[in-house]
Amino acid sequence: MNTNKKTWSGRFSEPVAQLVQRYTASIGFDYRLAEYDIQGSLAHARMLATTGIIPQADLQAIEQGLAQIQEEIKSGQFTWQLAQEDVHLNIEQRLTALTGDAGKRLHTARSRNDQVATDIRLYLRAAIDDIVVLIHVLQHTLLDLAEQHAATIMPGFTHLQVAQPVSFGHHLLAYYEMLVRDTQRLQDCRKRVNQLPLGAAALAGTSYPIDREQVARELEFEGVCRNSLDAVSDRDFAIEFCAAAALLMTHLSRLSEELILWMSPAFGFIRIADRFCTGSSIMPQKKNPDVPELVRGKTGRINGHLVALLTLMKSQPLAYNKDNQEDKEPLFDTVDTLKDTLTIYADMLTGLHVNPEAMRQAALRGYATATDLADYLVKKGTPFRDAHETVAQAVRFAEEKSCDLSDLSLTQLQQFSNTIEQDVFEVLTLEGSLQSRNHLGGTAPEQVHAAIRHARSQLPATR
Amino acid sequence: MNTNKKTWSGRFSEPVAQLVQRYTASIGFDYRLAEYDIQGSLAHARMLATTGIIPQADLQAIEQGLAQIQEEIKSGQFTWQLAQEDVHLNIEQRLTALTGDAGKRLHTARSRNDQVATDIRLYLRAAIDDIVVLIHVLQHTLLDLAEQHAATIMPGFTHLQVAQPVSFGHHLLAYYEMLVRDTQRLQDCRKRVNQLPLGAAALAGTSYPIDREQVARELEFEGVCRNSLDAVSDRDFAIEFCAAAALLMTHLSRLSEELILWMSPAFGFIRIADRFCTGSSIMPQKKNPDVPELVRGKTGRINGHLVALLTLMKSQPLAYNKDNQEDKEPLFDTVDTLKDTLTIYADMLTGLHVNPEAMRQAALRGYATATDLADYLVKKGTPFRDAHETVAQAVRFAEEKSCDLSDLSLTQLQQFSNTIEQDVFEVLTLEGSLQSRNHLGGTAPEQVHAAIRHARSQLPATR
Amino acid sequence: MNTNKKTWSGRFSEPVAQLVQRYTASIGFDYRLAEYDIQGSLAHARMLATTGIIPQADLQAIEQGLAQIQEEIKSGQFTWQLAQEDVHLNIEQRLTALTGDAGKRLHTARSRNDQVATDIRLYLRAAIDDIVVLIHVLQHTLLDLAEQHAATIMPGFTHLQVAQPVSFGHHLLAYYEMLVRDTQRLQDCRKRVNQLPLGAAALAGTSYPIDREQVARELEFEGVCRNSLDAVSDRDFAIEFCAAAALLMTHLSRLSEELILWMSPAFGFIRIADRFCTGSSIMPQKKNPDVPELVRGKTGRINGHLVALLTLMKSQPLAYNKDNQEDKEPLFDTVDTLKDTLTIYADMLTGLHVNPEAMRQAALRGYATATDLADYLVKKGTPFRDAHETVAQAVRFAEEKSCDLSDLSLTQLQQFSNTIEQDVFEVLTLEGSLQSRNHLGGTAPEQVHAAIRHARSQLPATR
Amino acid sequence: MNTNKKTWSGRFSEPVAQLVQRYTASIGFDYRLAEYDIQGSLAHARMLATTGIIPQADLQAIEQGLAQIQEEIKSGQFTWQLAQEDVHLNIEQRLTALTGDAGKRLHTARSRNDQVATDIRLYLRAAIDDIVVLIHVLQHTLLDLAEQHAATIMPGFTHLQVAQPVSFGHHLLAYYEMLVRDTQRLQDCRKRVNQLPLGAAALAGTSYPIDREQVARELEFEGVCRNSLDAVSDRDFAIEFCAAAALLMTHLSRLSEELILWMSPAFGFIRIADRFCTGSSIMPQKKNPDVPELVRGKTGRINGHLVALLTLMKSQPLAYNKDNQEDKEPLFDTVDTLKDTLTIYADMLTGLHVNPEAMRQAALRGYATATDLADYLVKKGTPFRDAHETVAQAVRFAEEKSCDLSDLSLTQLQQFSNTIEQDVFEVLTLEGSLQSRNHLGGTAPEQVHAAIRHARSQLPATR
Repeated sequence: MNTNKKTWSGRFSEPVAQLVQRYTASIGFDYRLAEYDIQGSLAHARMLATTGIIPQADLQAIEQGLAQIQEEIKSGQFTWQLAQEDVHLNIEQRLTALTGDAGKRLHTARSRNDQVATDIRLYLRAAIDDIVVLIHVLQHTLLDLAEQHAATIMPGFTHLQVAQPVSFGHHLLAYYEMLVRDTQRLQDCRKRVNQLPLGAAALAGTSYPIDREQVARELEFEGVCRNSLDAVSDRDFAIEFCAAAALLMTHLSRLSEELILWMSPAFGFIRIADRFCTGSSIMPQKKNPDVPELVRGKTGRINGHLVALLTLMKSQPLAYNKDNQEDKEPLFDTVDTLKDTLTIYADMLTGLHVNPEAMRQAALRGYATATDLADYLVKKGTPFRDAHETVAQAVRFAEEKSCDLSDLSLTQLQQFSNTIEQDVFEVLTLEGSLQSRNHLGGTAPEQVHAAIRHARSQLPATR
Repeated sequence: MNTNKKTWSGRFSEPVAQLVQRYTASIGFDYRLAEYDIQGSLAHARMLATTGIIPQADLQAIEQGLAQIQEEIKSGQFTWQLAQEDVHLNIEQRLTALTGDAGKRLHTARSRNDQVATDIRLYLRAAIDDIVVLIHVLQHTLLDLAEQHAATIMPGFTHLQVAQPVSFGHHLLAYYEMLVRDTQRLQDCRKRVNQLPLGAAALAGTSYPIDREQVARELEFEGVCRNSLDAVSDRDFAIEFCAAAALLMTHLSRLSEELILWMSPAFGFIRIADRFCTGSSIMPQKKNPDVPELVRGKTGRINGHLVALLTLMKSQPLAYNKDNQEDKEPLFDTVDTLKDTLTIYADMLTGLHVNPEAMRQAALRGYATATDLADYLVKKGTPFRDAHETVAQAVRFAEEKSCDLSDLSLTQLQQFSNTIEQDVFEVLTLEGSLQSRNHLGGTAPEQVHAAIRHARSQLPATR
Repeated sequence: MNTNKKTWSGRFSEPVAQLVQRYTASIGFDYRLAEYDIQGSLAHARMLATTGIIPQADLQAIEQGLAQIQEEIKSGQFTWQLAQEDVHLNIEQRLTALTGDAGKRLHTARSRNDQVATDIRLYLRAAIDDIVVLIHVLQHTLLDLAEQHAATIMPGFTHLQVAQPVSFGHHLLAYYEMLVRDTQRLQDCRKRVNQLPLGAAALAGTSYPIDREQVARELEFEGVCRNSLDAVSDRDFAIEFCAAAALLMTHLSRLSEELILWMSPAFGFIRIADRFCTGSSIMPQKKNPDVPELVRGKTGRINGHLVALLTLMKSQPLAYNKDNQEDKEPLFDTVDTLKDTLTIYADMLTGLHVNPEAMRQAALRGYATATDLADYLVKKGTPFRDAHETVAQAVRFAEEKSCDLSDLSLTQLQQFSNTIEQDVFEVLTLEGSLQSRNHLGGTAPEQVHAAIRHARSQLPATR
Repeated sequence: MNTNKKTWSGRFSEPVAQLVQRYTASIGFDYRLAEYDIQGSLAHARMLATTGIIPQADLQAIEQGLAQIQEEIKSGQFTWQLAQEDVHLNIEQRLTALTGDAGKRLHTARSRNDQVATDIRLYLRAAIDDIVVLIHVLQHTLLDLAEQHAATIMPGFTHLQVAQPVSFGHHLLAYYEMLVRDTQRLQDCRKRVNQLPLGAAALAGTSYPIDREQVARELEFEGVCRNSLDAVSDRDFAIEFCAAAALLMTHLSRLSEELILWMSPAFGFIRIADRFCTGSSIMPQKKNPDVPELVRGKTGRINGHLVALLTLMKSQPLAYNKDNQEDKEPLFDTVDTLKDTLTIYADMLTGLHVNPEAMRQAALRGYATATDLADYLVKKGTPFRDAHETVAQAVRFAEEKSCDLSDLSLTQLQQFSNTIEQDVFEVLTLEGSLQSRNHLGGTAPEQVHAAIRHARSQLPATR
């Protein structure tokens, strides 16, 4: 048997040149869909047999053949051939070599158009499930670390200027919340991924009495794509996934930026374990936070994939066009990048070494309790805007003296407002400031512990 | 009273130069949030009074003041001042002018950081609700048009080559399905938009005994942002909206591409009503499909906004940074573009003039029923792959004769397979092909009607 | 005269609805091209008269009419009408109102397609020239500041870890070099902008005996677009400009990131003058680097515009399509953003307050002279790789002692290599390290001064 | 010798975990730089010997060692090791294994930071040169095809509506012109690529008496990067290349869109040779224009890479950060995609089969000569705007009669203007229209031939 003969070559007079073959073939990357292609083919074949479209004997031959092919692929013995274009034809060709006419009947009532759409959805559904678990692992890590540091005081920044003291645990929980939304987005996307396109055939459906619900049940799809043209031509579910991935990476890029800042000697808040760092070929003293830097950089990669897919799909007339073959590499790389990044991130945070003293010292620079003084004045009866103005003047005075607000004497403070009394100095401590923000979502350690408890009650266990 | 004095200017020694003022101010665009800013302030003030943070009398003054300001804005009498930077300070300044100390107390226990986050969420929630209604209107239009054309035959294309005959109604329903998913995405996004950030204050919460649940209830938020740092610093909900918008526009760009093609004399399938077209300044005969072309072009605009926001957020350390001020213009323009485009699109489709005869003629070119012939052979016992090869040879033969498959004689057809009999000619008609694809999602008119019925049972009425 | 009658409305039966009118009209933004539209029309009219296509008397009427219109626009008396769609028809309509048949003859031998292409090129050429001057101003500022700080030592960072001591002046000159390339890119782009499309008419040229070279000379174009279809349909020059703009903003985003870091109390290297900062509505002590933050954020805006234009142009068939109307807003906003940002940036750098002592202290943390020790060993005969390993061990030893390399005793150092002698301590000073990098492009103050001299010899004066 | 020991591992206490190793290593893709890495190392070593920094004997050992390594790589015998991170350390490690101390001295006075910057520039310079030749080949193909079809009449489209008749050769030359600009952009970019970063070392230069000009001369760089911090940290030249690539692909996406349209049976203007098409797995009659569809799709891929790189670089503080390692894969893929696409495109156009009769028939639909009638009236004295209106009415009349303008009788035409005479019918032919546009850039066949002659005088021979 000549395995190099194209399945669709009956009406062609010219051989396809080498470069064109490579340029148009997808087997270089879509071999990764093999597992899902076989799953889909099995479900399709069973339906064909149930509905009487193919004989039961053919089904058995197909099942045995596909089982053998699966083994060959797993063991690395399967020979992928460029001449067979894609994963679908490579497998079908081998199946026909193994089973004869039964293999030739497998493609009854389907087209590669609905077949590849099915494969991608099965692949992406599994990928989402893996990614969600990896997010949960990272979330548990964040919760554990936050718990240890519920009462660790660091300077909260806005505009990278010291704003108010916050709990380091509270700061970490901000990322926990972002990941909650990232997970929701992936799960929302999964609903739209998890619809069966098979049965759309090339674009219009098929003339065979197929049973799409049976196939959907067997493949555990939640529903059936209700329009054949839509089923084979749209990839919005993959683009939606890439958009969710871009947001997830954006969140991690923010945490990475912070880890890089905090590990810089100017901050000195943390150290990342050596195994996540590399050195310099020239500077013997260097220990560089390579992993967070790469995560930050890979955000560009994922944004790029999103743009690639949106550009790809723009203005395509219905139904399937070959442009869509370009959807796979960006999607695969997005999945791989997310999985690697999440895995490595959870491990990296586990080994984080935190320096609470450096955090505390930094919180003491920058008049972090100025808002507390304003609030103190308000509670004594000054309208907030006037209190704000008063404190601004006090800060200016302290700046000129190069000291903190808490270093001013009561007399000096009273120059700015005669309602100030001795109890002001409690308000001006970092601890006082922190503990006073004691409401849902606030930074008081009590709230941080409550938030962790709430989170743990929501988050699935991962082991 | 000097309304040009900055609220936060107490410790500044220099006046802000003109260009800097314009460059850093957001009032040029965020005045659009005024309605939501007032809503949020009212809920905040009521909570402050309920919890005893401000006196009841102050609340009444604030309510009256804000009511007057709302009137002034509606009637165009309100003077927006660049010197007041943004919508929040413009309104607060005016309120203080009207109410004195009560106005100065409104900002107690909040910051512009949580205030603007609240405003944007209220704005976007309303925008999503408007957009969903407009999508529903467009979907009803598609259903009506599809119903008229359930049995209108057009050539289904893949690769812009004639593939198989399809129902024009079925083709339109593909867009209906895309819009179903677009709506779901917006509604999923809405859940994440609809969480209250107020109470996060600058970044850490506040030292006042606030009641965030009360504010959430009054503003009809579904929940409260559980982490103050996250609440003021993330804009993922807005980016998620823009990603959903980009997909919606991508779908409309595809329909627009098709409308443009179909209106080209090469196709001649449709005419768009004159009011959606413009002419040429030089060519007197021209009638150009301007609206679909603009929709296609505006897809770039929306993709660009998505990229702008993703780039903006990448690698920002917590918590709020001024970069975030740049989130508004892309978001506002995305909302405006979607609303205008959806409104105009529904109206444009209503006035579409369809030419079924041109569609039918086009379906007769390109051997649209070749798959039907292959299926015919399969049903006579030939394995599908062999049938495919046989028909490919028959098509080649017909091409050389410059005729359709249905123009070949039975004798000629039998050269390719001796299982072919007289009944083959029913299979080779457009109608026969269409009606045979009679399963869920298929193009048979019966299925199209069923799909419309199903859709109507799901879709909310819009009038 | 009914100025609301569409110029091209002869064959239309329906009035254009309000929303459609707004949606399809460009006058809301392209009025900004008026100056260039008039320039182009004057050159066109003169050519029409020279070649005898219109009478000399008509030219005079047109010249007078356009002069009056230019006055009306300048003085704000001109009424832009949405019903006239765009800048071209608004002006032509008014001209016809002023001059009758002469006005109606102006559009002879041209189309709006080549007219708008000409307008945009004239606009963009002027914008590039303005922007280049603003870059030069910024470059002069950088040179002046670098000169003051040629010998100011700061820690050079890689991976935000202290790497080696560098001159702050040298650091600033890195941005000077980036701006050199940005300028080159704009000037290279200008060559491609500066080609005349007029004469392409709608798409095919015109049947009149026009003289395109005359028009090109009068409008100071360097050449004539050599293909009419290309002339009216491509916008690659505008996209190229936006790509150059994105790189310029990317460079400024990097400097902005550094300014924000340096102004953070963790670094404390600089202060930005108050007029480029704003405060907080809640935190009385805050002084936020708003301008660099906005510049960083606006990088997203410009990247977004680039993506918008690339998406817009993708897959458009020739020749002009209405999609192209969407090219203007992103382009205008890119130009505006660049001009404002450059202006404000030069001013901001002029007022920068530098704290050399903070920089010096930071350079002393992080073993910045470890490479110098390795080089010292190499000069004593150790192969570089071995020297690198030796110094790594010395650093580890010093880290454990919590001291700098220069704090180790000679005896301690000699534990790592017996080739180390007393002269090693010169090598371990910041000044010694800095001055030793004394070659073209190196950080030694001597080289910094040489680089400034070279730069000044290349850079045009701007005042 | 233990080749798994990290070059920079002296101060690390933990082994780098497997995943981290893979995540942070670049050898999986940067092995492609080996050829340029060796070139750069040779030039560096020669300079080190010339300046006396290393002994002459070491140079000889290095030269022999690198020659052997180059052979090993070419013959596939070189073992790339993940544990050695990148191409630089893999080669240096092997060199040290081969040459001992000489190999350990090669890295004197340089860092991987300037080494990789040099490698990428050498790589990209060679890539640009290859790409420019491939563009020239494509341009020659376009010129040959345009010459054959200088007088072939097709409908010129605007808005995909028939506008005016154009020469098919003229239409093709529009793409020739776009490619002229694409080439210019690449050559302008090459000037900025072709500057030597080596000598910048880690970021600050080096303490050795290096001679950068010698290295630049040997490697044929046009100049030396004048600032060490800039030299190692910027990648604007690579982003500029990607932007030029995106424009080139955008141009090819437009031609691809047209080829796809023209090959659709609705147009039937061309056929692409079978070897650039593929068939369908289900529809036996299909011949799909896969190559132009993929080119259209790959435009997204290249836009994505541009966005990835811009995002990557945004807001990075100086100098080198690990983020930059992410620059290579998008760059390599952009180069590969361009080379393949250009090669295949030139071959595809060579085999294009054109159907002039189908083009002619299409030009007869759509009143393509209406502008000619308006021009005719103008030449008889009617102002253009009035002529335009008159012809619009005539077109409307003809539309109602379902005939072309040239099918109207003289009497009928004279109803619209009594200046119309018998000679009008010459003006209304396609040939008359075409030939009348006889000026620089116009579509008259005479101009097309002149444009081809001009192009050939400019374009380098490629064989």
